[in-house]
Amino acid sequence: MIVQRLAIIGLGLIGGSLARALRAAGAVAHISGYDPDSSRRQDAERLCVIDKVYDTPVAAVREADLVVLAVPVMHTADALLDCLPGCKTDVVITDVGSTKQSVLADVARACGSVPPWFVAAHPIAGTEKSGVAHAQTDLFRRHRVILTPHDGQDPAARALVNRMWQAVGARVVEMDAARHDAIFAATSHLPHILAFSFVDMLAQLDGEGDIFSNAGGGFRDFSRIASSSPQMWHDIVRANTGAVRSLLDRQINELQNIRNMIDTERWDDLKALFERARTARERYLTQIE
Amino acid sequence: MIVQRLAIIGLGLIGGSLARALRAAGAVAHISGYDPDSSRRQDAERLCVIDKVYDTPVAAVREADLVVLAVPVMHTADALLDCLPGCKTDVVITDVGSTKQSVLADVARACGSVPPWFVAAHPIAGTEKSGVAHAQTDLFRRHRVILTPHDGQDPAARALVNRMWQAVGARVVEMDAARHDAIFAATSHLPHILAFSFVDMLAQLDGEGDIFSNAGGGFRDFSRIASSSPQMWHDIVRANTGAVRSLLDRQINELQNIRNMIDTERWDDLKALFERARTARERYLTQIE
Repeated sequence: MIVQRLAIIGLGLIGGSLARALRAAGAVAHISGYDPDSSRRQDAERLCVIDKVYDTPVAAVREADLVVLAVPVMHTADALLDCLPGCKTDVVITDVGSTKQSVLADVARACGSVPPWFVAAHPIAGTEKSGVAHAQTDLFRRHRVILTPHDGQDPAARALVNRMWQAVGARVVEMDAARHDAIFAATSHLPHILAFSFVDMLAQLDGEGDIFSNAGGGFRDFSRIASSSPQMWHDIVRANTGAVRSLLDRQINELQNIRNMIDTERWDDLKALFERARTARERYLTQIE
Repeated sequence: MIVQRLAIIGLGLIGGSLARALRAAGAVAHISGYDPDSSRRQDAERLCVIDKVYDTPVAAVREADLVVLAVPVMHTADALLDCLPGCKTDVVITDVGSTKQSVLADVARACGSVPPWFVAAHPIAGTEKSGVAHAQTDLFRRHRVILTPHDGQDPAARALVNRMWQAVGARVVEMDAARHDAIFAATSHLPHILAFSFVDMLAQLDGEGDIFSNAGGGFRDFSRIASSSPQMWHDIVRANTGAVRSLLDRQINELQNIRNMIDTERWDDLKALFERARTARERYLTQIE
């Protein structure tokens, strides 16, 4: 048993999957929950994801040893302030947001400084499907969870969050919040922008229906993340503007280079670029296996 | 039985998978084959993909009723000329190239005009893996094959190629070659350019190893096609320059628009764009299911 009483604020895919996974691992005795959306609260109860759902965040966190804020990243600090009046004095609170500098800055702004009992965390897991109905027990198994410790963080708080994620099969890694944001701008935020913008561009072409009905497997996988939550990705881009903007510029540059290679018929350069990319992706595949 | 004697020129993923599929369907009595690469010839024989492999295209097509040119798209016309001296007078020859205007233009240039017995075809199937060792019996099952008929084509030739693809479970569709090229520039050629350019851009960032080791499932699917054959995709871009260039310009424009939304903090516009894209992809999903 890692935690006696856990509270999850935000009953979506991540909050719901974490509840199911901790239950399945026997890592928690009781899970309470809250979501501002009453239909999500009902779903979480009906689908037996949460032991007890409450109508207010204060009620949900009342007895909790550990509170997980599984809300859209821009709402993290607000959600924290909303539960604080109900929290025990020795509570540990953690989040699951996809950007970490913005969460730490928002929490610092809300609380004066980032409290010792706050643990900024980001599980690298999810699907393009949203909502508690898609909660999966094994969503975090063999996935990474990044912790981005701040100065003054209580090591015991960090260790508790670490144990919670390990209990659901995740591998926990620590890094600096700025480094985290640069890395995930590259591997996650920019590809989402590219996928959304690519599908949006196609949807504006003449004969769009014909285009989509002839799309093959390459298109399906490449565009999968364009089915992700627009609200969530809007929040993430907004919360990580600096890193995203600089990578977007690099990407536009690279595409203009390719346009130039085509215009000037520098076909060997184009092939060399494709080869570099394939080689890099093969390196990536050996790293994740 | 659809064909007594079939010859496959080019023993890669597509040629090999077609051979296996036609065999499994009992649709062909004998398959001969040729590839300029002797190690591929040996593999095709060792893996029992082909009944008899020959050292020259002329020898491979000698008895064939139907010849399939499964070569890189820019080599289609050359491969055609290389086999013609060995072909029966009533042979039917078809290809599998990913671009169709260029194939028809190359064949017209090579033969004076596109012969009645040539059937331009494009199976919408494949994986990022190349080579006969990855040949799959069910690669074409429930996939589309596009035929792009030219003026003067022999309807019997077209019907034979149609039956061959139906025998391996494919759905055969006919359309104009220019329309084909515009559609596949959008659904296939541009996404390959985006995936290659994205991975290449990441590979040039500082701490690239760290970036790749933290990539999640979104990255894996989005970048899958960047593991495709650089030679093949160089050929395709080169063979479909017109359509690719105009889409690449639209894509660059769309990314510059997004850059502008971020700069000017037009967050509602960004969310609306993401929403349009998600809605379009949901339409696509209903179409392919």
